[in-house]
Amino acid sequence: MALPSDVSPRAFATAISKWQSIVGREWVFTSDEDVALYRDSYSPLAGEQDERVASAAVAPANAEEVQKIVQVANTYKIPLYPISTGKNLGYGGSAPVLSGSVVLDLKRMNRISDYDEINGTVLVEPGVNYFDLYHFLQERGGKYWIDCPDPGWGSVIGNALDHGAGYTAGDHRNHFDSHCGMEVVLATGEVLRTGMGAVPNAKTWQQYKYGIGPYIAGLFGQSNYGVVTKMGFWLYPQPDAFFRGSVTVPKRADLAPLVNTVNRLENLGVVNGMIGFQSPLAADLGKPALQALIDKPGGWVDAELDRYAADNGLPNWSCSLAFFGPTEVVAAQWKYAKECFSAIPGANFTNDETISFPLTAQRLAELKKKETFANRNVEFGIPSLSIFSIGARSASNPNPTDGHVWFSPIIPRNAESLMQAQRVFYQASKEAGLPPTSPFSGPVTCWHRSFIFIMGFPIYKDPQINKKNREGFRKMVEVAAEHGWAEYRTHTIYYDDIADTYSYNDHVLRRFQEVIKDAVDPNGILSAGRYGIWPKHLRKKQA
Amino acid sequence: MALPSDVSPRAFATAISKWQSIVGREWVFTSDEDVALYRDSYSPLAGEQDERVASAAVAPANAEEVQKIVQVANTYKIPLYPISTGKNLGYGGSAPVLSGSVVLDLKRMNRISDYDEINGTVLVEPGVNYFDLYHFLQERGGKYWIDCPDPGWGSVIGNALDHGAGYTAGDHRNHFDSHCGMEVVLATGEVLRTGMGAVPNAKTWQQYKYGIGPYIAGLFGQSNYGVVTKMGFWLYPQPDAFFRGSVTVPKRADLAPLVNTVNRLENLGVVNGMIGFQSPLAADLGKPALQALIDKPGGWVDAELDRYAADNGLPNWSCSLAFFGPTEVVAAQWKYAKECFSAIPGANFTNDETISFPLTAQRLAELKKKETFANRNVEFGIPSLSIFSIGARSASNPNPTDGHVWFSPIIPRNAESLMQAQRVFYQASKEAGLPPTSPFSGPVTCWHRSFIFIMGFPIYKDPQINKKNREGFRKMVEVAAEHGWAEYRTHTIYYDDIADTYSYNDHVLRRFQEVIKDAVDPNGILSAGRYGIWPKHLRKKQA
Repeated sequence: MALPSDVSPRAFATAISKWQSIVGREWVFTSDEDVALYRDSYSPLAGEQDERVASAAVAPANAEEVQKIVQVANTYKIPLYPISTGKNLGYGGSAPVLSGSVVLDLKRMNRISDYDEINGTVLVEPGVNYFDLYHFLQERGGKYWIDCPDPGWGSVIGNALDHGAGYTAGDHRNHFDSHCGMEVVLATGEVLRTGMGAVPNAKTWQQYKYGIGPYIAGLFGQSNYGVVTKMGFWLYPQPDAFFRGSVTVPKRADLAPLVNTVNRLENLGVVNGMIGFQSPLAADLGKPALQALIDKPGGWVDAELDRYAADNGLPNWSCSLAFFGPTEVVAAQWKYAKECFSAIPGANFTNDETISFPLTAQRLAELKKKETFANRNVEFGIPSLSIFSIGARSASNPNPTDGHVWFSPIIPRNAESLMQAQRVFYQASKEAGLPPTSPFSGPVTCWHRSFIFIMGFPIYKDPQINKKNREGFRKMVEVAAEHGWAEYRTHTIYYDDIADTYSYNDHVLRRFQEVIKDAVDPNGILSAGRYGIWPKHLRKKQA
Repeated sequence: MALPSDVSPRAFATAISKWQSIVGREWVFTSDEDVALYRDSYSPLAGEQDERVASAAVAPANAEEVQKIVQVANTYKIPLYPISTGKNLGYGGSAPVLSGSVVLDLKRMNRISDYDEINGTVLVEPGVNYFDLYHFLQERGGKYWIDCPDPGWGSVIGNALDHGAGYTAGDHRNHFDSHCGMEVVLATGEVLRTGMGAVPNAKTWQQYKYGIGPYIAGLFGQSNYGVVTKMGFWLYPQPDAFFRGSVTVPKRADLAPLVNTVNRLENLGVVNGMIGFQSPLAADLGKPALQALIDKPGGWVDAELDRYAADNGLPNWSCSLAFFGPTEVVAAQWKYAKECFSAIPGANFTNDETISFPLTAQRLAELKKKETFANRNVEFGIPSLSIFSIGARSASNPNPTDGHVWFSPIIPRNAESLMQAQRVFYQASKEAGLPPTSPFSGPVTCWHRSFIFIMGFPIYKDPQINKKNREGFRKMVEVAAEHGWAEYRTHTIYYDDIADTYSYNDHVLRRFQEVIKDAVDPNGILSAGRYGIWPKHLRKKQA
């Protein structure tokens, strides 16, 4: 067993025994077999000396037990690492940042309550996953959708707290933004409610976020200031219809009017579903004629790509727009969008798909059957695990990966930045000896006003490859920061690297976060190291 | 001059002299005449012993000067009260919570920068008011609208920080929510940037809110943790058209399907403008037949109001819906809304108004000419001061008021709660000896998923009336809290009263806010008492 540092075996044993009396012996895990289940299945340090591992785990049934567990941890100064369902693969899973921490596993707290059918709000505990919430709502008539991230087995709370994203309409895709109201067990063991929840007998806890005075809920995302034990969420009413249409434009330079038009349509509210940018030339990658243009010294020349595209009957960009809403409204929105795009010479349109809701059982079965990585039902609020086909063994992929982590810097939502990021990361990945990123990588547009530029790093059982990838990852972080771009979320092992790039004014943001950390968790027992914030007694060791 | 408590005249004089050398003598105000300009024009304590008054004021030109001023305040432990433009009438204006505080007047910091025409974002300083930003955008082609509160002379930052609201489309009406990125001078004098602003040379400061780690921006709204010196905002692209349509329904009980339908339409995104609920019976208030029904012992009976309405050819409820967007989309949205409302027997529709944008000069002139309190151009992002006709002298109002404050609890967005609030506050206002609230008060719907129930309290030059109104206000706060409802924003003199109602778990929220206050502003120099948060050395005096 990996004991927490600075904790004596006797103190640890006493704490374990107290926790056993709080939650019952069967919910405190100390055997190697049990604790190994909390290892990160996608650890970039798998099997290495530095792999982050827990010392034990304790699984409370309710907030009262969380309070008592936290109090014991305070008494014996034992680091706790709360997880919701621990399914955050690619971002650290259920393993702590600091080896030796005791995992506070909240999976048993899986109640769904306060469903408000008139306002479309619901209150959940950390153990509630997307399948649970989906089934809960379907059993009540399916009036509301949830917004899921790729893997449906994750915690609704956990994903929101990690600033995760989804695929349905508008702001619902921003999971932290679409929460309203939290219950938090503080490091002191006290229970706090944010917003209107601080009013006894509150009637609008899930309806208005801010309450009165400084709004503190933001403090509990990507943080180690408290243990979130309940969160309210705003649901999306089931729309009548879904429609997807696409536009292609011939030239490289057409990306500017394409992005600008999309931005205006989204900010007006005319398009509310996901927007996908792609370069159809990506299909020809590897063909010698195109590859030669790409790998030209000094990088590709847009006019040459334009010529290649024209010669091969390919447009340079395609953009797919999704619309949710009443059938006739959606039709009018697409018609208007087409009018706007028509200002771009050579714009060409395709009507991709129309789906009506509620889905018939037959249609749902069809959708599930044809589900692939590229064609997922998460867009309709249906949780799925199909994402895990990434990197799986197939005819074209005889050497499956053992996992992946993402590097996903936020870049400006304009054509110039996207094309710059494509060049910068293609060049940098080659220089770092990584598999080069696609020169035609499209941005992810889950949130308004910004792009996410996503790069995947595979994990293998081979520590040599993993080490090289870790170095490559850190190189990418550095290159991004040189351009004023940075990551919104990352794997536990890169927390410090990413936090280091937010260094304005001698890291004043982190120093401010540390001041709060010391004030609200003076013994530093909660999630040491989470997103670069270490408790005082470990700060020097890290530096 | 009202010296700050616990500050010696010599220390104060030294600080004043240091501030003079930082900002120039002409920007430090100490004479009675100058300091009197910072009195609250709408103070419910006007002319009384307890009226909150400043000792002096200092007006920096930029963030560097703010830093130096704050450092001096720390050295001499002098309470500062930052204001943006100080036009927050009804909520305390430019007067401090703690008498003797030095007003830190940010009006000279009025730069607008980083306008991004592709994404519709802009960065402003605290002295920028809505007229400034409106003219800035109009001069650049009017591609984007701003979302203004009622009085256009207020600070864009100040309003957002106080959780203010506006009148255009969707989330833009929530002014704090529609911000992205802050610069803050901390109580230590250091400058911090939130979100992506913490990345040196940041390219997405106004495009993605959260950055990495705990999101701290919420801490600087309704707070005293720092001095906000810049804020980014998301703008609404000028839509092609505005349309307003109304529906009326005959019976009291029809409010339930009416509200439920409106909620679904808004949460779907089918209606994006303001929604107004009214009871046409309000026009008959004061008529003996109706008044007798209202004042029946035990309160009014819905069946009797139904009969009165039917006998007088009045519907019981009307609801007006505003739509912004492309002309055909707006038409399809209203058509769909009518189909939904048609499920309510007796629903009746009116097409109220259509306006196309950009406005012609002639149309703009017409709109300005016909502007009244009820018919304001803020809905089209045009700042105005017409709100100040409230309570003004007129034929029907020979005794004008000298101002007003609002009591605006958040109540659940459903029919039952609205009708309950109408009864509760009508009864309570009568019992408190106040002018009774209208039994037909409609809710304000600026934000999704909740209602605001607004009551106005006039201010007069007569301290006796003001005293009675203060007692009445506090009674209303109490009555609201008994029902689990509470205020989202209030006048400075009621900060403690409102904060007291957020008392869950022995005021743990406020105690948590105080822990942060002590950590980030150990000398307690910033905005003592703001929204109920007092620095440590003044906490006992208040309790």
